[in-house]
Amino acid sequence: MRRSSGVPPDPWAIIESSLDVDRLGWSESVFALSNGHIGVRGNLDEGEPYSRPGTYLNSVYETRPLPHAEGGYGFPESGQTAINVTNGKLIRLLVDDEPFDVRYGELRRHVRRLDMRAGLLERDLEWVSPAGQAVRVHSTRLVSFTQRAVVAIRYEVEALGEPARAVIQSELAANEPEPAPRDNDPRVAAALDRPLVELDHSIRNGTVVLVHETRASGIKVASSMSHELSGPPDTLETCDSDGDLGRTTFTTLLEPGECLCIVKYLGYGWSTVRSQHALTDQVTAAVVAAAQTGWYGLVAEQRMFLDEFWDGADVELHGDPELQQATRFGLFHALQAGARAEQRPIAAKGLSGNGYDGHSFWDTETFVLPFLNHTRPQSAGDALRWRHSTIEIARERATALGLRGAAFPWRTINGEECSGYWPAGTASFHVNSAIADAVVRHVHATGDVAFERDVGVELLVETARLWRSLGHFDPAGEFRIDGVTGPDEYSAVVDNNVYTNLMARRNLLAAAEVCARNLDVAATFGADESEFAEWRAAAVAMRVPFDERLGVHSQSEGFTDHQMWDFQNTRADQYPLLKHFPYFDLYRKQVIKQSDLVLAMHLCPDEFDAEQKRRNFDYYEAINVRDSSLSSVTQAVIAAEVGHLGLAYRYARETALVDLGDLNSNADDGLHIAALAGIWTVMVDGFGGMRSGSGRLHFAPRLPAELDHLQLNLRYRSRLLRLSIARDTATYLLRAGEPLEFDHFGAPQLLEADPLVLGIPVLVATPEPRQPFGRAPA
Amino acid sequence: MRRSSGVPPDPWAIIESSLDVDRLGWSESVFALSNGHIGVRGNLDEGEPYSRPGTYLNSVYETRPLPHAEGGYGFPESGQTAINVTNGKLIRLLVDDEPFDVRYGELRRHVRRLDMRAGLLERDLEWVSPAGQAVRVHSTRLVSFTQRAVVAIRYEVEALGEPARAVIQSELAANEPEPAPRDNDPRVAAALDRPLVELDHSIRNGTVVLVHETRASGIKVASSMSHELSGPPDTLETCDSDGDLGRTTFTTLLEPGECLCIVKYLGYGWSTVRSQHALTDQVTAAVVAAAQTGWYGLVAEQRMFLDEFWDGADVELHGDPELQQATRFGLFHALQAGARAEQRPIAAKGLSGNGYDGHSFWDTETFVLPFLNHTRPQSAGDALRWRHSTIEIARERATALGLRGAAFPWRTINGEECSGYWPAGTASFHVNSAIADAVVRHVHATGDVAFERDVGVELLVETARLWRSLGHFDPAGEFRIDGVTGPDEYSAVVDNNVYTNLMARRNLLAAAEVCARNLDVAATFGADESEFAEWRAAAVAMRVPFDERLGVHSQSEGFTDHQMWDFQNTRADQYPLLKHFPYFDLYRKQVIKQSDLVLAMHLCPDEFDAEQKRRNFDYYEAINVRDSSLSSVTQAVIAAEVGHLGLAYRYARETALVDLGDLNSNADDGLHIAALAGIWTVMVDGFGGMRSGSGRLHFAPRLPAELDHLQLNLRYRSRLLRLSIARDTATYLLRAGEPLEFDHFGAPQLLEADPLVLGIPVLVATPEPRQPFGRAPA
Repeated sequence: MRRSSGVPPDPWAIIESSLDVDRLGWSESVFALSNGHIGVRGNLDEGEPYSRPGTYLNSVYETRPLPHAEGGYGFPESGQTAINVTNGKLIRLLVDDEPFDVRYGELRRHVRRLDMRAGLLERDLEWVSPAGQAVRVHSTRLVSFTQRAVVAIRYEVEALGEPARAVIQSELAANEPEPAPRDNDPRVAAALDRPLVELDHSIRNGTVVLVHETRASGIKVASSMSHELSGPPDTLETCDSDGDLGRTTFTTLLEPGECLCIVKYLGYGWSTVRSQHALTDQVTAAVVAAAQTGWYGLVAEQRMFLDEFWDGADVELHGDPELQQATRFGLFHALQAGARAEQRPIAAKGLSGNGYDGHSFWDTETFVLPFLNHTRPQSAGDALRWRHSTIEIARERATALGLRGAAFPWRTINGEECSGYWPAGTASFHVNSAIADAVVRHVHATGDVAFERDVGVELLVETARLWRSLGHFDPAGEFRIDGVTGPDEYSAVVDNNVYTNLMARRNLLAAAEVCARNLDVAATFGADESEFAEWRAAAVAMRVPFDERLGVHSQSEGFTDHQMWDFQNTRADQYPLLKHFPYFDLYRKQVIKQSDLVLAMHLCPDEFDAEQKRRNFDYYEAINVRDSSLSSVTQAVIAAEVGHLGLAYRYARETALVDLGDLNSNADDGLHIAALAGIWTVMVDGFGGMRSGSGRLHFAPRLPAELDHLQLNLRYRSRLLRLSIARDTATYLLRAGEPLEFDHFGAPQLLEADPLVLGIPVLVATPEPRQPFGRAPA
Repeated sequence: MRRSSGVPPDPWAIIESSLDVDRLGWSESVFALSNGHIGVRGNLDEGEPYSRPGTYLNSVYETRPLPHAEGGYGFPESGQTAINVTNGKLIRLLVDDEPFDVRYGELRRHVRRLDMRAGLLERDLEWVSPAGQAVRVHSTRLVSFTQRAVVAIRYEVEALGEPARAVIQSELAANEPEPAPRDNDPRVAAALDRPLVELDHSIRNGTVVLVHETRASGIKVASSMSHELSGPPDTLETCDSDGDLGRTTFTTLLEPGECLCIVKYLGYGWSTVRSQHALTDQVTAAVVAAAQTGWYGLVAEQRMFLDEFWDGADVELHGDPELQQATRFGLFHALQAGARAEQRPIAAKGLSGNGYDGHSFWDTETFVLPFLNHTRPQSAGDALRWRHSTIEIARERATALGLRGAAFPWRTINGEECSGYWPAGTASFHVNSAIADAVVRHVHATGDVAFERDVGVELLVETARLWRSLGHFDPAGEFRIDGVTGPDEYSAVVDNNVYTNLMARRNLLAAAEVCARNLDVAATFGADESEFAEWRAAAVAMRVPFDERLGVHSQSEGFTDHQMWDFQNTRADQYPLLKHFPYFDLYRKQVIKQSDLVLAMHLCPDEFDAEQKRRNFDYYEAINVRDSSLSSVTQAVIAAEVGHLGLAYRYARETALVDLGDLNSNADDGLHIAALAGIWTVMVDGFGGMRSGSGRLHFAPRLPAELDHLQLNLRYRSRLLRLSIARDTATYLLRAGEPLEFDHFGAPQLLEADPLVLGIPVLVATPEPRQPFGRAPA
């Protein structure tokens, strides 16, 4: 039995046919809407019951203490946590004085539908109140991609059977009670309790505005709402507000079949520098503009935006409707996380939940930006511009650590390090190479020279300097990087992690190359040819451990000498291992959370020969427990490359279904944005065999037996490409843009106006490797 | 200019000629009195000013949260902190209604003297009140070695010049305000604020008793006081008490030259199981018994106790009076820490301060017990019996860590792990081999067969099991212990730390050997010959990294490939490094806090040949910054062995003066008991060249040029030995006990009734190694 989403397959929608109040956390995340600027969880309109009432604004956080049982020099003492801001999606309904609540009365029908082409969340229900009055409610919610400060909700209630008195209370509610944070530290809870301090509230022309400020971090947050009403002519509309609550109330008597319908426009604005007055004006303008566009205007804009996105991003596959749905679900949410982030970070959970405190990590650069580079490149550029905006903080951090260049944080919202556990935080320097690599890939994907000069050179220079100062030449002349942690967090503080060293090499070489073609810009950062030569020398001498006895790379020095994890005696309920075994036990044994060695083979494909790739994949597959949701992405890509297409397919499903199927039982914390974006990588780099990031596109497409056909769309340097993969042939189509030179299975090709139909070489099957006991993909 | 104590040299006393209120923290520690059961800091009688008002009872602690910014499986969540209990040393004096306070009026004379032969702290002062009344105060304080629950103070005030009204308030004061803990965590501060909850207070026959209970840890603490008075016949004595204060007041009018003198007897008792009533009786009995002995009786008992101690422990040296004084200071305080601990732990600071939260570490077994084994062996045995009493907790900890046997805590009071930083806590498994080694050495030093059977076998079996399960055989057949931290805390979580592996080997072999001669006892723990064989096999195959290129052992895998620390650019004010550089930077470079490789050469002398010892010492000396106070002990011992006697001498001074000279500027936290006991090791194992712990004593005595003569006394298996070392000869004297076979520079000798005078071979001098820049011993 394979794991499944439990959602009825639909190519373009996620449909929940009936409400499961025990899975509200899951559905709130799955039905979360966002444009990267504002995010609202898929809470019920009436607010309750909920798992967590989430409305998040990109970079609105509160600071909180990071306590240490035993402190250490350089340990961050203050962290950031994304907070639930003023809730504007709240629309309460009273039917003949009884509050509509799904836990009472009879819920005759409750259907929700996330339409991924329209960008709308629809809800349709019939409810009979405890007193016997039936109503139908239809609501539609959107977070506008085109008007980034705006959320809009259309809410309609119809009386069924008997006349009904309907009261709608549409609210802005600040400082809602929230479930206690899991770590149970009362100081942290105190810091995050009622984080919004009232600054102002007003009602003008029916527009309610609340302005707050976060207590410690000093971020001003303004929210506004206005309404359009259609209903019986004598419907009464009233408005009131105090510091933490704005409320517009609509009261009417509905005849059977008669509807009361409101459209609610919500605006959000926030700033650390702008005045309360300016923010009030800003959010008032947002709802005025939205009202002027109107509900149907917003809906139309939303569709146009998404049509353009899907045109350049869609992955169409035949043979697995569930995977088709889950793939589009992944792309849709990854877009939501990044579309309008606009020089603010893209968090690990996007704006779908406050898991990981709303922090961003290296996986944005590594797993989300490749997708955005080829589907919505301006958003990828913006994400890197955000990184660049924090470079001064990163330089200070490097200095504090005794290093040169810039040391970007392991986890952050505002650019400052928030990691409370340095062996998997500070020591994870590979975040810097991820940023550098993302710069290179973005420039490659877009040819954006201005970006390279404005942002790229400085990011590359400062990260190269970091690596040069972090490593050293040993007496044998090899360049070593000791005491760091790679992406596999089941080892830490190791010497010469292969992934880190190869990515550092890539970083150093790219810096030298980019500087060489932008000497003037490089000079402004004091970088010259002598420094480039140093970078190249370190890159060339980079140590890469290889175990001759096993004929595989050792993930880091000595790794392959370590004791094997006792997989046979590890029970299913002991995964993820980090929640059931101490770090010390994980670190000293051969067991991996996600294979960084395999990731190195994906991102640095030319550093390994085919035989090494095959042997390395098999070796690390056998000890990879995939306790990270990122793992399946990488395993799928390399499984496909080394010819294990069935395995790649199973990992594709594991990737795409991570949240729809709630494979890790933690979707309620928010969605796994990197894995969801990663399904694009699985499809394109895995089954499409694309390798990019070094000046030319390479493809080696190949279908797993389970799929009949796969069609990929992607953008590349102002081109629109389509690759259609069938069993024995691949068809390349240039839908827009200049002719393209590329490689198909290593052979150079020229793609012009006419489609190119090329054969796919026959695969010589090799035996599939085993996973650790009990950890085969389901 | 060499660093000095600043104390006038006196062979048997520490004299403070005038009061320095800016160094009260230092003098409170230096003048602390303890018997290992009770400890009182050298506070002024009148209580203020103070650095910290310390009265500590062995194992009286409060539990407190151990907060983690990012938690992890197995991280301890609750810690223990030794608390300042009811202060009974408080004796306030009012002269004509003006409180005596050294900060006011004129302090004409203020001399304190710690007499290390008498075990008394004396204070003599003359003070003129702001109103012009002069008084002389003479007080003497003792913590009885013979009546372990008793503290006694003789306090005498004399009017000078004019008649004076004198009021003495002698108090028991609970819940005194204390300086905030350094880590500044409000939850921790809250847990430790006013930790004593009142249970009872009473006054019966002039004996005041207060009974409290610690709030969270539930330890009942009773304190009592009674007084003897001599003074003018009309002296009024009154008594009052409430929950946190007991007070006896003496009021009189003194003619010039007339004295009011009180003797105060204090009793302490504590328990988690006994009733409040039983404790009240116990502490009442303690002061009744003390009063019956009387002040002079207590003083006489104290002297007899110490005479016996010094008879078997004294180190007499000629040529450096300051070192002579400091050496006895070290021995005296080490005795105070351990003498009557009696199956309670010996803490890193003894009972002289609450540094390290009052915790015990591995250094008790490694640095304190060797001294006690040969000077007061019953105390060493008791310390190990305490460890044994916690073995069930250690077994549970091993199970929680997925290991067999027992995993003793890195730091603890009650046996539970209190370490909040696992890379230098849980990972420091070598604490277990330290316990096993201490068992072996204790049995060797005493021949105590009952101890071996009662305690030794089980400790050895369970620690051997731990090592066997912690390590594994690699494909090459070597036994590896990966991912652990050795005593050098500037590296952590390393593979095959030489010290750890060799001590584990010693542990495994000793367990097999001791079990083989106690098969019946071993069988009760399920250990049989097949398990012994496993232990031996692991021991024989133990991996010991050696760097062939450098011709030295590598402290752990890859260590000698690491980058050198940039000593040249490290400023003096950046030491200790751990307070100025992040762990990640320390761990990945060649820099050591204390050399565990050199310690391995001391404790496992037969694992290295002479050339390896010389080369290893020189290599590690050059990168050892000695940020641990334990470092100089080990460096001195091996410096002497490899022939660098001048260096050994300088390290002897660094060791002995650690607190008297406040070399680390932290004596106010309490004394460095392991270093203070370590001066014995420096003298005996260093200049005496003694090696023990393997069935036979070896000596290789040699004086540094700075000393003319050194005489060592020690106990060994019911014998009393004396070794007198002159420039060219060593004289061995058997003062009591059976004839002894031993080695002198490798040659077997038989010591009988007559002194043996043996020649000291000529030393072939080799160049002295360099220390890291700026880190030469002063």
